[in-house]
Amino acid sequence: MTKTAPPAATPVSLITNVRVADGRHVDVAIADGRIAALGAALPRQDAVRIEDGAGALLLPGFVEGHTHLDKTNWGLPWYRNEVGARLTDRIENERHWRARSGHDAGTQSLALARAFVQMGTTRVRTHVDIDTDAGLRHLDGVLATRDTLRDVLEMQIVAFPQSGLLGRPGTAELLDRALAAGADVLGALDPALIDGDPVKSLDLSFEIAQRHGKPIDIHLHEPGEVGAFTLGLLLDRVAALGMQGQVVVSHAFCLGALPERERDALLERLAALRVALLTTAPAAVPVPPLAACREHGVTLFGGNDGIRDTWTPYGSPDMLERAMLIAMRYGLRRDDDLALAFDCVSSVAAHACGFADYGLQPGARADLVLVDADTLAHAIVARPPRRLVVSNGRVVARDGVLVDL
Amino acid sequence: MTKTAPPAATPVSLITNVRVADGRHVDVAIADGRIAALGAALPRQDAVRIEDGAGALLLPGFVEGHTHLDKTNWGLPWYRNEVGARLTDRIENERHWRARSGHDAGTQSLALARAFVQMGTTRVRTHVDIDTDAGLRHLDGVLATRDTLRDVLEMQIVAFPQSGLLGRPGTAELLDRALAAGADVLGALDPALIDGDPVKSLDLSFEIAQRHGKPIDIHLHEPGEVGAFTLGLLLDRVAALGMQGQVVVSHAFCLGALPERERDALLERLAALRVALLTTAPAAVPVPPLAACREHGVTLFGGNDGIRDTWTPYGSPDMLERAMLIAMRYGLRRDDDLALAFDCVSSVAAHACGFADYGLQPGARADLVLVDADTLAHAIVARPPRRLVVSNGRVVARDGVLVDL
Repeated sequence: MTKTAPPAATPVSLITNVRVADGRHVDVAIADGRIAALGAALPRQDAVRIEDGAGALLLPGFVEGHTHLDKTNWGLPWYRNEVGARLTDRIENERHWRARSGHDAGTQSLALARAFVQMGTTRVRTHVDIDTDAGLRHLDGVLATRDTLRDVLEMQIVAFPQSGLLGRPGTAELLDRALAAGADVLGALDPALIDGDPVKSLDLSFEIAQRHGKPIDIHLHEPGEVGAFTLGLLLDRVAALGMQGQVVVSHAFCLGALPERERDALLERLAALRVALLTTAPAAVPVPPLAACREHGVTLFGGNDGIRDTWTPYGSPDMLERAMLIAMRYGLRRDDDLALAFDCVSSVAAHACGFADYGLQPGARADLVLVDADTLAHAIVARPPRRLVVSNGRVVARDGVLVDL
Repeated sequence: MTKTAPPAATPVSLITNVRVADGRHVDVAIADGRIAALGAALPRQDAVRIEDGAGALLLPGFVEGHTHLDKTNWGLPWYRNEVGARLTDRIENERHWRARSGHDAGTQSLALARAFVQMGTTRVRTHVDIDTDAGLRHLDGVLATRDTLRDVLEMQIVAFPQSGLLGRPGTAELLDRALAAGADVLGALDPALIDGDPVKSLDLSFEIAQRHGKPIDIHLHEPGEVGAFTLGLLLDRVAALGMQGQVVVSHAFCLGALPERERDALLERLAALRVALLTTAPAAVPVPPLAACREHGVTLFGGNDGIRDTWTPYGSPDMLERAMLIAMRYGLRRDDDLALAFDCVSSVAAHACGFADYGLQPGARADLVLVDADTLAHAIVARPPRRLVVSNGRVVARDGVLVDL
């Protein structure tokens, strides 16, 4: 039995002297990968390995609610973006670039997933491209990454028809195979503006999801009134098929650009059907209004979208940066409001995606982040290197560097 | 004569092997604080001190076009923001807080100015509060900071009536004294919505500025049509008084929320009168449109606004972060578009503020930043620690740390 800090990704059983949101200094006892107790001056005699928290701020492991691990160029030479402005330009460009470049979704998703862990993220929902060019190749790569990191990163995989569902025959069958092969969630994309037939597209998506008993997470970029129309069709199907609580609408730009009355009617339906919304909080386009979502009881959570890929140069595996961008997008300045932005990449995201046993309470999975910051708001704007990251009860990063991963 | 790297903020005479925007590897020769030559394989025999650029990307020193060094809590314990949402709430809160807290504008402005230098900024325009409570106290503090850093940071000071010009008798006289005491630019604030009398407020501002032969930089937060009305009144005075090229309108939110025809008419007048616009690229409010400004020949440059003060928890002395936020606000993704965002915090800002001898050409002041990044866009999104910062020909920061400052 040693009482020194562990050198590697080994289980820790007690973290002493960390600060929680209300300013109290507490210890955290960990057993079997879970929080056993959290309180002042916990007994040390049973602790196999002790970490000194040194008064750092304790946060729960972060949750990435929407990214595309398979697409990233993280760690590769800079990708020079010369892509046209339309959604279809970006889709075409990516497919052609992948065919040329030998981009490897396994290698790339592992590089980015490790960076997420390093910066304190312990749960990720990632959309993985499924199309008739690549088949299930990207899925296979991301499944391998999930397996490699299974002890320290909980990953949900969304089988995502990036090139559309209806336009390329064979896509539905590939999605079927993806769900059978281990994808957790069925993805979908702009039933009107990409697929051109919102009723047929939505009906097929719901049919596939129901056949596998899997939830849905749809990319809905469609703006304003057309987005509202598609969203209404989607909600009809959630109600008719009893899929309450099993659908996420990602982006939902339309909700940021509707007359208030029409918007609120949709928010009421979203709340009643427990359909959650995901935002990346983009600065340049309308976004679902956070305050109105909260008033109506609609779950709104956050994510990066792609990170340094052929679509976008932006994004970061540091979810504190995403919390900052969310807070800035919604004009939040008060400390209590910044805490709401953090919720979007932590507890609310865990709830919306269905990541179980999340939080800082006894019984939760021991996914913990220590940062040198005075308060949560300070952590969000300063984003210091993570002093310690514990995932599933194991130390996985120390002073900003991965250990034994 | 030594040829080793200098240990401190001493003059450097040759930087070898740096990459410029087009990918060429060049050397930079420096003499008397200026770029003497920039080219391949410059002669080394005359070089007193040589820095090895190691192939890093060479950028010009950054320009902060609008901040408030006197307000910041940089380096202090976290300020918990519990302030109301209105502009007047924030103004009142700050004045009361300063009276209570003993906030010292000299100490604080120096702390933040040093952080700017550390991250590669060599020119700053800072607005300094002048009001009837504090008198010229904040100005005195910032003047002291300017003097302390005079060899490495060129600072323009705007005498800024944060509590309004008309509402508190004695303010105009304080502004007079501030300009006489060393402030470079006359500031102003919302002539209609804060001062309540746009004609009287603007007339007085122009009278003060003209009496001192100083330019104007006005905070115009006024939204939509009322902002357009005030902006029109301002432009009338620029034309009537011959102050073309001597006025900056900061924020100018109104230009982001007008019908296109009305907006374009204002942009045409702005271009003709050479009135520049400053944006912080806030994500939550309308902003002057970058593309339309460029089409009309209107100068649009960038800055932080306040940094970690009682107004806002956000902001950073890293102008690469501001470039990223500008690029995100305008939905820029292509590498050539991200370069435009960088221009807003470098060449365009220098031009708009009138910082002389700016750039990477021979004869310019040797204000240089080296970063480990593949390209400019990569530098903007990754924001690595600065490998080397040279200001006025002196090494002021190395590997992210200030040297001898």
